[in-house]
Amino acid sequence: MSDIAAVLERELGAGRVIGPGDDRLDDYGRDESPALLVPDDARHPPACAVLCERTDEVAAVLRVCAERGVPVVPRGAGSGMTGGCLPVAGGVVLSTERMQRVVEIAEDDLVAVVEPGVITGRLQEAVEARGLFYPPDPASLDFCSIGGNAATCAGGPRAFKYGVTREYVLGLEVALMGGEVLRVGRRTSKGVTGYDLVAGFVGSEGTFGVITELTVKLLPLPPGVATVLGVFADVPAASAAITALLRRGIRPRVLELADRASIDHVRPRARYRFPDGAGAIVLVEVDGDPDALDAEVERIGQACEGAGALDVLAAQSASERRALWEARRLISKSLRDAHRVKLNEDVCVPRGAITEMLARIARTSADLDLPIAVFGHAGDGNLHVNVLSDDDPADPAVARRLDQAVHRVLADTIDLRGTLSGEHGIGVTKRDVMTLEQSERVLEWQRRWKAMWDPAGLLNPGKVLPRRRGACSE
Amino acid sequence: MSDIAAVLERELGAGRVIGPGDDRLDDYGRDESPALLVPDDARHPPACAVLCERTDEVAAVLRVCAERGVPVVPRGAGSGMTGGCLPVAGGVVLSTERMQRVVEIAEDDLVAVVEPGVITGRLQEAVEARGLFYPPDPASLDFCSIGGNAATCAGGPRAFKYGVTREYVLGLEVALMGGEVLRVGRRTSKGVTGYDLVAGFVGSEGTFGVITELTVKLLPLPPGVATVLGVFADVPAASAAITALLRRGIRPRVLELADRASIDHVRPRARYRFPDGAGAIVLVEVDGDPDALDAEVERIGQACEGAGALDVLAAQSASERRALWEARRLISKSLRDAHRVKLNEDVCVPRGAITEMLARIARTSADLDLPIAVFGHAGDGNLHVNVLSDDDPADPAVARRLDQAVHRVLADTIDLRGTLSGEHGIGVTKRDVMTLEQSERVLEWQRRWKAMWDPAGLLNPGKVLPRRRGACSE
Repeated sequence: MSDIAAVLERELGAGRVIGPGDDRLDDYGRDESPALLVPDDARHPPACAVLCERTDEVAAVLRVCAERGVPVVPRGAGSGMTGGCLPVAGGVVLSTERMQRVVEIAEDDLVAVVEPGVITGRLQEAVEARGLFYPPDPASLDFCSIGGNAATCAGGPRAFKYGVTREYVLGLEVALMGGEVLRVGRRTSKGVTGYDLVAGFVGSEGTFGVITELTVKLLPLPPGVATVLGVFADVPAASAAITALLRRGIRPRVLELADRASIDHVRPRARYRFPDGAGAIVLVEVDGDPDALDAEVERIGQACEGAGALDVLAAQSASERRALWEARRLISKSLRDAHRVKLNEDVCVPRGAITEMLARIARTSADLDLPIAVFGHAGDGNLHVNVLSDDDPADPAVARRLDQAVHRVLADTIDLRGTLSGEHGIGVTKRDVMTLEQSERVLEWQRRWKAMWDPAGLLNPGKVLPRRRGACSE
Repeated sequence: MSDIAAVLERELGAGRVIGPGDDRLDDYGRDESPALLVPDDARHPPACAVLCERTDEVAAVLRVCAERGVPVVPRGAGSGMTGGCLPVAGGVVLSTERMQRVVEIAEDDLVAVVEPGVITGRLQEAVEARGLFYPPDPASLDFCSIGGNAATCAGGPRAFKYGVTREYVLGLEVALMGGEVLRVGRRTSKGVTGYDLVAGFVGSEGTFGVITELTVKLLPLPPGVATVLGVFADVPAASAAITALLRRGIRPRVLELADRASIDHVRPRARYRFPDGAGAIVLVEVDGDPDALDAEVERIGQACEGAGALDVLAAQSASERRALWEARRLISKSLRDAHRVKLNEDVCVPRGAITEMLARIARTSADLDLPIAVFGHAGDGNLHVNVLSDDDPADPAVARRLDQAVHRVLADTIDLRGTLSGEHGIGVTKRDVMTLEQSERVLEWQRRWKAMWDPAGLLNPGKVLPRRRGACSE
C-alpha cells in the first residue's frame, strides 16, 4: 500500500494527492467525533488523501484502489460526529471537498443539481435568493457538505415538519468500488420506476458508493416565519405544552427542548435573563402565510401558558428570531467549553417517551455522579444527551463511569422502544452497540446488502456494522 | 405444483385455501389494470389462493412453497393498475385481505401499527377520530389496502405537500421467501441506525418480501381545509396560475390539473356548469390554521385571476368542498363509461415540463386520431394520460395505433426528463419498457438486489424488471 500515493498522483496529475510528509495529511485522520468514543486504533492519518475535482477522478481512485486491494474512505467536510470518515483500516481518504459546483437551480422544476462538496448553508442561500427552500438544517450547516448530509441522512431542527435529507434526494450519481459510475433515481418529485436504489445510498455512510452528484428537491420558500420561546419549571411542564400544541393541530417546523443542565450552562452567556426557576425551555417555530402567524403565535403562547410557563417570548423579524435562538445555539459550545469531557449521544425515542427518558437520564446522572445535559428535537424524540465530566478520562475509574453512563443511556433508549441514532449515524463510535437494537439476522441482511455493492469490503471498511458474532478479531 | 393447494390446506387448516374448482379462484387472477396492457399469458387464475390471517401463516406459505419451488404472488386488495399481483408464472396467490387489525394507535407517539390488509380509508377514519392524520390518499382509498400501498409506494393528490407512502412507513415486519420473518425499521419518526432496509421493501411490489405488519407515522390533523377550483381557457393559462401561486410561497396540499378532454367528459354529469370555453381546471387545496385560510384562498383566487381564469370557486365546509371535488372525482369513471378502450398511463415529468408534455400529447392525439384525456397531480408533474378509443382493439390496426400512442407518451416523458411511473408502479404492464428510462447497468444492479432477497426468483416472479438483454425467452 506504500506506493499508492505515487500511483494516484501519476493517475490524476499533480496537486490532487496529499501524501506522507505533507502537514495537511493528519487532518484527514480526524473528524468531529468525541475522542473518547473513537477506538484508539482508529485515530491515525491515511496513507494519502485525494482531492478529487470531477466524477472521472473519483472513479479512477476507486478503480486503482480496487485493483490494488487498498481501502478507500470517502470524506465530505469531515464534520461527522461518529467517526464515519476516519480511515480505521488505513488506505486512501477520497475527499469531495473541491467538488463545490451548484450545477443547476431549476425554479420551475423545483430541483437543484449539485456536486457533493457544496456546503449545505451555501446551497440554502443560493436557492433562497430565488424564493426557493432547501429545508434540512443540521447544526453544522455552515461547514458541512451536502454529499456528507446525504451519506449520513442528516437531520436538523426543521425535520419535524419537513423531514430529513432522505426526503430531498431525488437522484444521485454514484461511483462504486472498482470505478463503475451509476446514475440512479430521477428528476421528478415523485416516481416509482423500479427499486429505490437512491434510498440505499442515502444514510449508508459512504460504504455502498461515493456520491458524485445529487439532484435535490426544493420547495417554495415560506413567506413568513415566527419563533416562540417558552420557559418552564421542569421537563414535564415543557412536555405538556408540546403535547397541548400538537393536539390543537399546530404543525411547527421546529420544536426544540432543552433541560435545566443545558439552561444553567448557557445562562451566564445568553443575553436573555432566564427566570430563577427555569428548568426547561421549548423553542417553537412556525412558518407560512405571514398574515396567519400572529394567530398561530397566540395559540402557541396559550398552550405554553396553559402548561404553566414561567415566561413566553415571541418574534417574527429575523434579528429578534436570532435572539430567541441564541440560547439554544449556545448550548453545545457552552457545554464543551465548561467541561473536560463531553460525550454527545444522539438517541431517538418515541415522542411519548421523552419525559420518561429524561427522568431516567436524571437518575443515571445522580447514580454515577456525572452531570448530563439534554437538548434536542422534541418533536421527533431526537435527544442529544451530553455526558459531562471534569475528571481525567485517562483514569480507568473515570473512563469506566463514563462508559457506564453512555451504556445506560443507550439501554434506556432501546427499553423505551427508541433507536441508537436519530441523525448522526453509526460510523465507528456506535458500531459495536448495534446489537443492543438489531437482531443478528437484521445485521446479517445488512452485511449481504453491503457485500452486494462492495464484495471485497474495501469501501469505508469497519463502519456501521459490527463483526459477525463469533468471528475472530484480527 | 398440482398438489400445492392440498399441501397448504394440510399446513394451515381448513378455510384458508381457495383451490381449483372454487368459483372465487378466478378473482385472484385479476386486478384493476387495463386488459389491453397485460400480456395474454398473464391473465389466468393461480394454482390456489391462500387467505392468511397471521404472520406465522404467511411464513408457512413462503416456507412450503420455497421447499417445493412454487412461485408465490403476494396480493393486497387487488386494486393495483399495473398487474403487480397477477400470477403470471402460476403458483400460489398469498392474500393478506384478512389481516385487517389496527393493532395500535399511539397518540403521543404519533404512530399507528397495522396489519397489511387494513383498508387505507378505514385507517384514515380511525386516526382522524382521534385528531390525527395519515396523509397518503390514493384514489382507491376506499378499497385499497395499506400493505399494497406500501408495496407500491402509493401516492395521491396530497403527496404534493405531504409526500408519498414511503415517507410514512417507519417500520415493517416482513416474511421472506423461505419463511424467515424479519422486523426492520423503527417506531421513532427519525432514525439512522444501520442501512435503510425499510426503504427497499417500500415500492418493491412484493418481490422482496411479504409485508405482515406496518408501523406508520401520523401527523396532527390539520384543523382547517379550504378548496379552490379555478377554470381556465387552456392548459398554458392553468399552468401560469400554478406557477404564480407557488411563487407567492403558497404550499397547497393538493394541486390538481385536468385538460379539456377530461372536462368535456364530466361536463354532462357534474352539477357545476362549466363555462363554454373551459379548457383546463386547477383544483387547489390548502390546510392549516382555520383563521388563516380565508387570506390564503384570497391569494389563490388572485393568482388564478391574474392568469385569466374564466371562473374561480372556493369552499371550506366539507359538503361544499365535496362539490368542488366532484368534477375531478368523476373524470376517471366518465372516461371509462364513455369509451370501449381506456389506457391509463401514469407518467411523471419535471414540474416545469407539464405544459410542453400536454402539447406533445395533443399532437400525438391528432396524429393518431385517438382522443387522449389528461388529468393528475400537477404539483408533482404526475399525469394520468388516458388514451381512449371506441374501435375494436381486437383489430390489429387499432391495437397498433393504441400501442403507438402509448409509446409516444412514454418516449416524450423520458425525452422531457420524466419517469415512467409516478405512483402506480411497473408490475407487468411497464416491465418491458423499463429500458426506455434505465440503463442496462442500473437494471442489472436491481436484479442483484432482487436476487439478494430471493435468489431462486420465486417471489412474485416476472414483475418490475425486464429480462436481461440477450437472455432467451422461455
